[in-house]
Amino acid sequence: MTLPFSQTADLRPLFEPAGVVVAGASSHPGKFGFAVLHNIITCGYQGRVFATNRNGGELLGIECLTSVAEVPAGQADLVYVCVPAAAVAQVLREAASVGIRAAFIASSGFGEGQDEQGAAHGLELATLASELGMVIAGPNGQGLVSTPVSLCAQFVGPFPPAGGVSIVSQSGNLASGAMNYATASGVGVARAISAGNATCLGVDDYIAWLADDPATTTILAYLEGVADARRFYDTVKAASARKPVVVVKGGTSDDGARAAASHTGSLATNDRIFDGMLRQAGAWRSPDIGAAFGAAAALAVHQPMQGPNVAFLTTAGGWGVLTADAMAQSPLQLMELPDDLMASLDEVLPPRWSQGNPIDVAGGETRDTIPNALHLLAAHPSVDGVLMLGMGIQSNTAALMRGGQFSQLDDIDRICSFHERQDRRYAEAIVEASATTGTPILAATELALSNPGNPGPATLREHGHPCYTSPTDAVAAFAALYARGRHLRLS
Amino acid sequence: MTLPFSQTADLRPLFEPAGVVVAGASSHPGKFGFAVLHNIITCGYQGRVFATNRNGGELLGIECLTSVAEVPAGQADLVYVCVPAAAVAQVLREAASVGIRAAFIASSGFGEGQDEQGAAHGLELATLASELGMVIAGPNGQGLVSTPVSLCAQFVGPFPPAGGVSIVSQSGNLASGAMNYATASGVGVARAISAGNATCLGVDDYIAWLADDPATTTILAYLEGVADARRFYDTVKAASARKPVVVVKGGTSDDGARAAASHTGSLATNDRIFDGMLRQAGAWRSPDIGAAFGAAAALAVHQPMQGPNVAFLTTAGGWGVLTADAMAQSPLQLMELPDDLMASLDEVLPPRWSQGNPIDVAGGETRDTIPNALHLLAAHPSVDGVLMLGMGIQSNTAALMRGGQFSQLDDIDRICSFHERQDRRYAEAIVEASATTGTPILAATELALSNPGNPGPATLREHGHPCYTSPTDAVAAFAALYARGRHLRLS
Repeated sequence: MTLPFSQTADLRPLFEPAGVVVAGASSHPGKFGFAVLHNIITCGYQGRVFATNRNGGELLGIECLTSVAEVPAGQADLVYVCVPAAAVAQVLREAASVGIRAAFIASSGFGEGQDEQGAAHGLELATLASELGMVIAGPNGQGLVSTPVSLCAQFVGPFPPAGGVSIVSQSGNLASGAMNYATASGVGVARAISAGNATCLGVDDYIAWLADDPATTTILAYLEGVADARRFYDTVKAASARKPVVVVKGGTSDDGARAAASHTGSLATNDRIFDGMLRQAGAWRSPDIGAAFGAAAALAVHQPMQGPNVAFLTTAGGWGVLTADAMAQSPLQLMELPDDLMASLDEVLPPRWSQGNPIDVAGGETRDTIPNALHLLAAHPSVDGVLMLGMGIQSNTAALMRGGQFSQLDDIDRICSFHERQDRRYAEAIVEASATTGTPILAATELALSNPGNPGPATLREHGHPCYTSPTDAVAAFAALYARGRHLRLS
Repeated sequence: MTLPFSQTADLRPLFEPAGVVVAGASSHPGKFGFAVLHNIITCGYQGRVFATNRNGGELLGIECLTSVAEVPAGQADLVYVCVPAAAVAQVLREAASVGIRAAFIASSGFGEGQDEQGAAHGLELATLASELGMVIAGPNGQGLVSTPVSLCAQFVGPFPPAGGVSIVSQSGNLASGAMNYATASGVGVARAISAGNATCLGVDDYIAWLADDPATTTILAYLEGVADARRFYDTVKAASARKPVVVVKGGTSDDGARAAASHTGSLATNDRIFDGMLRQAGAWRSPDIGAAFGAAAALAVHQPMQGPNVAFLTTAGGWGVLTADAMAQSPLQLMELPDDLMASLDEVLPPRWSQGNPIDVAGGETRDTIPNALHLLAAHPSVDGVLMLGMGIQSNTAALMRGGQFSQLDDIDRICSFHERQDRRYAEAIVEASATTGTPILAATELALSNPGNPGPATLREHGHPCYTSPTDAVAAFAALYARGRHLRLS
């Protein structure tokens, strides 16, 4: 039922409104109409905020209007609609009459339950969008986030840190999921939207707009079905020419497709055809939201890879072995180190280093070993990517000492501070060396999960750099960077 | 070079020593000989602790002896050795002379660098173990952990919570990795050991002892090679008959095998043969430590599955779809719900539930919906496993309110407390219903990663229950429970 927009819909009123109206605000904190108003105010939205409630009254410091028609003309661009389905059309007409150009409809009852009256409301929405010249998101969606204007127009958490990843999702919960990963990793979000039933605006409409959105560096989409496969392909292809697009497709199996039919009413698609279509369009496909965010994070932070050659720098042998195994199942190469690089490494590494890739310093590192080696590797023309393993181990031991009964001893404080400083320096070297050379440097350690305050992962997070928790995830992120580079070179 | 123990080596002196000596304790907090003594004391080991240092003196409240020979006879069972390789033999002879029956050797220089002198030291160790009748772990290892006696005899962190998973690893760092997962998940550890060069005691010796260890409910092993494939097979098979064994094998690819040769000197093995051998022995194989710990955690906490039928209970549609897709690639079934179960569910679920599996309550849950449905599902004879999705979402929204500018309002506190209490109840229902029915109930949400304080995941953690962060991980854990049940039925 996607409207035949001949060109990209203008979603600026949706994502950068000068003012927002919550229609159907509620004084009950368990209701959507309370939570969304609360989140808009508390997350620091700087534009004008209005709220309507049939009974008027004050809510969270805002004097409620009794209808959207009372909003001063031209003061708001977006109405977030929480009223019952039957009342939505009236709200939209009033909104249009005061110059509001975009709506997000949270209300359900638009045919998602297959009932006839709901379907009629859905049809009416599509017609209204066209008649009123409004862009209409939802219905039956959680809301939207737009960090450039500090807008958290959704009835759920979290409000993620600001950054370049934009999220479009046919599942509100998986939009939240991606934002939870943003919160955990520090790799931030520009825009996020739960498409709901996508009655008027579909996933492809959002992708088309985000492709031109300067705040968006990478697009992450979750979808269960597409209304018009050709249009979706053209949209993704055009977007991929501008910036990376990562797609998660739900319902690839028979059981998944049945679950998707129940969830979003999507029809089953032939997954091999869909997969080939995505590849041809230049998108990267991930199996779930965690993997997708991992790929999007690498793509948002790093340059694409110029070739498949990866060097591992590790203080921990076992991690190197498992990551080599994981990489062997990817198009990437655990590169052979050229002679001149071996010679340069010999100058900065301890004598007992592994003399090959993985570059295992076997615990023999001193103050500058790791930063020097990172810069050396990233600057070498034959190295397309660097993976740092083993960061944070010393600080993890320091954490045991900090929490122990001897933590007051000067000697213990001194050694803990040294190790913590070192792990911070390693993280800073990753940020610096990848920025100055353009070579992606990724880090992986499960400490990002078990000890998020560890100075290694924490420093990466502060810089908005991802830190992967498994060899598989790190390799998948490199594979996305490599595929992106190849796509740009071949197209 | 594994010694031909005709039967299981007695590792009680290693894992449950009445006293421990740190030989080569150091006053420099950056040295192994300081860190291990510190960790033994600070983690609360209740046995007698001795330390030796050539110069004597006091260290962390302990009066150092100048040699192990000075330890009062019969007062210690274990010596943790940090002295240089050349001095190790002397320490071991002295240890034996005062009745010490086990040694962990952290020192390197025993042939891991392929040097001749080191290899000679290694041979000497093997001979000494036999001559002195000692069990000798290492050399070149990080140490061991034994939570039943609060022993943290390792120079690194973490000291994990107590529990039933025991860890044997040819990589010290990956032993730490598994313990980091234990710390993050709350699914605790019984014993953990870094096998180092495994000169005397190999992975199979540890597995053989752990198979009979009452504190160990599940064994997790990381290995890169086995000295005697037949002995390894027999050991794992015998252990699997008693309790679940989870194995990660590093070096399965050519690159990984080269990295393993450099790391532990292991020879490449034919991976398909190794895989078949593990399967026949009844072990579960995982690709990395995170997945292995996820499987071990399920196996440690839950009963094996009696069949492949899994029911999903979800408040979030998208998660159900992706998990159904992941499950379609496993031997598990997204089961069809039998009529009587459908009828019972109809009584406890809101009218708009999905009327099928995944059981999506579509946000319509009230106070008792989820606990009631969990108990109903787990108690039904046709359900072999239950997966709970969407736990913690409301508390994640509550977290936004708790951190916001209106957090002092009574209404907000009330609704947040309600949601937090509900998520706690869901977690408690998982713990209770799986305990009373024997049906495994797993939970999955990325909030366990992004918001570990969320009452849903936090309550599971407090009860020592795992909470998975991705659909793939949850499905892999179910697959391990299913394989375990099948192994027990067929053998």
